Amino acid sequence: MSGSPADERRPVSESTLDRPVVAVVLAGGVGSRLYPASRGDRPKQFLPLGTDSDESLLSRTVARLDFADEVLVSTRPAFADEVPEHAPDTEVVVEPAGKDTGPALLYATWEARRRVTGDADTAADPVVVCLPSDHHVPDAEAFAAAMSRGARVAADTGALVAFGVEPTRPDTGYGYIEPGAQHGGYADLAAFHEKPDAETAREYLAAGYRWNAGIFAWTPAALFAAAHDTPLAPLADALEAGEPKRGFDAVEPISIDYAVMERADEAAVVPVDFVWDDLGSWDALERVLGGDAHGNTLDSDALALDASGNVVVSDDKHVSVVGVDDLCVVAYDDRVLVVPKAEAQRVREVVARLKGDGSF
Amino acid sequence: MSGSPADERRPVSESTLDRPVVAVVLAGGVGSRLYPASRGDRPKQFLPLGTDSDESLLSRTVARLDFADEVLVSTRPAFADEVPEHAPDTEVVVEPAGKDTGPALLYATWEARRRVTGDADTAADPVVVCLPSDHHVPDAEAFAAAMSRGARVAADTGALVAFGVEPTRPDTGYGYIEPGAQHGGYADLAAFHEKPDAETAREYLAAGYRWNAGIFAWTPAALFAAAHDTPLAPLADALEAGEPKRGFDAVEPISIDYAVMERADEAAVVPVDFVWDDLGSWDALERVLGGDAHGNTLDSDALALDASGNVVVSDDKHVSVVGVDDLCVVAYDDRVLVVPKAEAQRVREVVARLKGDGSF
Repeated sequence: MSGSPADERRPVSESTLDRPVVAVVLAGGVGSRLYPASRGDRPKQFLPLGTDSDESLLSRTVARLDFADEVLVSTRPAFADEVPEHAPDTEVVVEPAGKDTGPALLYATWEARRRVTGDADTAADPVVVCLPSDHHVPDAEAFAAAMSRGARVAADTGALVAFGVEPTRPDTGYGYIEPGAQHGGYADLAAFHEKPDAETAREYLAAGYRWNAGIFAWTPAALFAAAHDTPLAPLADALEAGEPKRGFDAVEPISIDYAVMERADEAAVVPVDFVWDDLGSWDALERVLGGDAHGNTLDSDALALDASGNVVVSDDKHVSVVGVDDLCVVAYDDRVLVVPKAEAQRVREVVARLKGDGSF
Repeated sequence: MSGSPADERRPVSESTLDRPVVAVVLAGGVGSRLYPASRGDRPKQFLPLGTDSDESLLSRTVARLDFADEVLVSTRPAFADEVPEHAPDTEVVVEPAGKDTGPALLYATWEARRRVTGDADTAADPVVVCLPSDHHVPDAEAFAAAMSRGARVAADTGALVAFGVEPTRPDTGYGYIEPGAQHGGYADLAAFHEKPDAETAREYLAAGYRWNAGIFAWTPAALFAAAHDTPLAPLADALEAGEPKRGFDAVEPISIDYAVMERADEAAVVPVDFVWDDLGSWDALERVLGGDAHGNTLDSDALALDASGNVVVSDDKHVSVVGVDDLCVVAYDDRVLVVPKAEAQRVREVVARLKGDGSF
């Protein structure tokens, strides 16, 4: 009798990888829930958020990629010129069109292979580690070790690898990964779960599910094999024919999770336990920066009188909060936002309105 | 038997005043509770508050002074150069030092007499109507009629005249005037009362007390006669000797209410019923401008989502309020303020802190 699919997989080796690791940094998004710091022409990854320094999120992301032999930053045309300011020693891959993470990562993976192999030597097919450019990961060493481990799992098993962050709370703002059968250093990926309600989030935590950090590792061969059965097929075909433009015209916008990861036969989850936050909305700053004695998170010139639990952020403005609790108050340029911390996700609604009248 | 002091007064005549009326506009204050619109170098009276137009409060104040034969604007040295921009056809009186309304009004009254009589002809002693530069009075016609009536009371009775606004609510932000014996068109001034608590304010309303609008009328002779018995005596003496500088050096800061009005033997109150608001703090804008369908008062480029009862004011900024109620959100220059409407008076505390570190 043959064993289960998991048993058929090769154990993860301990030796040095015999192929290059390429880190692909996705820097084409805007991070609109961080309006008004983020704007249509000033994406979140270019901002120095969640830090006392003035280093942008992209800059800090690139600084923790020493595990990789090469770094590609994938972005949209409008942001391409500014990427080198934040990531000076990297290659920039410009997405022919903004079609969400599915097309972007397939294209960047194709570019990674092309640049490493020169279109020819598939023996040297790299392992590609794809990661967002705008997340908060303070422990670069733990991060790098986890990435190397994931790269090895991808190389040794041929699976599409997701990284599952150990949850520290039943967060309703993150997607969850349900692990299946355990192997040495990784597990089968049983299922992805959308952002849950509070009750479900507690169940997920109790069941050992992990946060989906949006970080993936795979070989180009594995990703292309999987993509041909998915909505990414038109792009996969076109890329293999060397025609990215045609592929982007043909493919619909879709996330990598929906397009590939959720339906992949060979998907794995590598558990990681570094501190991680997606800095998705203004309330995240309290977690990342920590509050003062009154629970206020004041990362700028600010004055709080009889006020607690507020998050106050600005470019160079002086913000006074008096007698208010648990608000986010954000001031950048000529824009100001006031929203309760508990409703910080609703900044989406503001941005939708602003986009409607062309002022985002 | 002689009658009561009130009976001894002459009835107010209906004929034309036989002396000039000089309006003195007090424009030396800052209006710091309207921070950050008001700043140390940009007082409230220079701002276009409580209006859809871009006319400043001072400009609108001066525009309703047609009842006067001459207008003097009294201000501090730092503001003197800008006064003509808001009040082009007026004389500017520069207070030698900022010592509150008592010294300022005694000095301006002295200047008014000097300019009208040329230091000589006391027969032509004017009636001086003193009024703040930063209040909201939409009905200029009713205002002018009331001022003329008060000027006549001051001329005919020789009393120091306060104007008592008919209260429309038990406001705890205003001082109250208690009228005494009624005469034709005015009453004796029985007492001034400080800003009351809510319970007391209701009692005042029931008892027929009136708001102290900070508007006064008197003849120079009457004011100087009264001032000689008060803390203003050193200034009164010095002014009569033609030495204002010496007088300002000698006098202590004190309000006209404390210094003179509260202790005057001959003080009257003229009841007026025009719409009046002192625009003292940000919550006043709701009263003056009126809220929209959600009770929001948005006098600027603003976006309110699921938010009600807020007052949002800015110079030219775009302010978004989401899911918050009954807040004042104010953004001017590089300053932002967030405070509940009900605590709008506490902006004083912010300003005190800012003054402490020299950033008001």
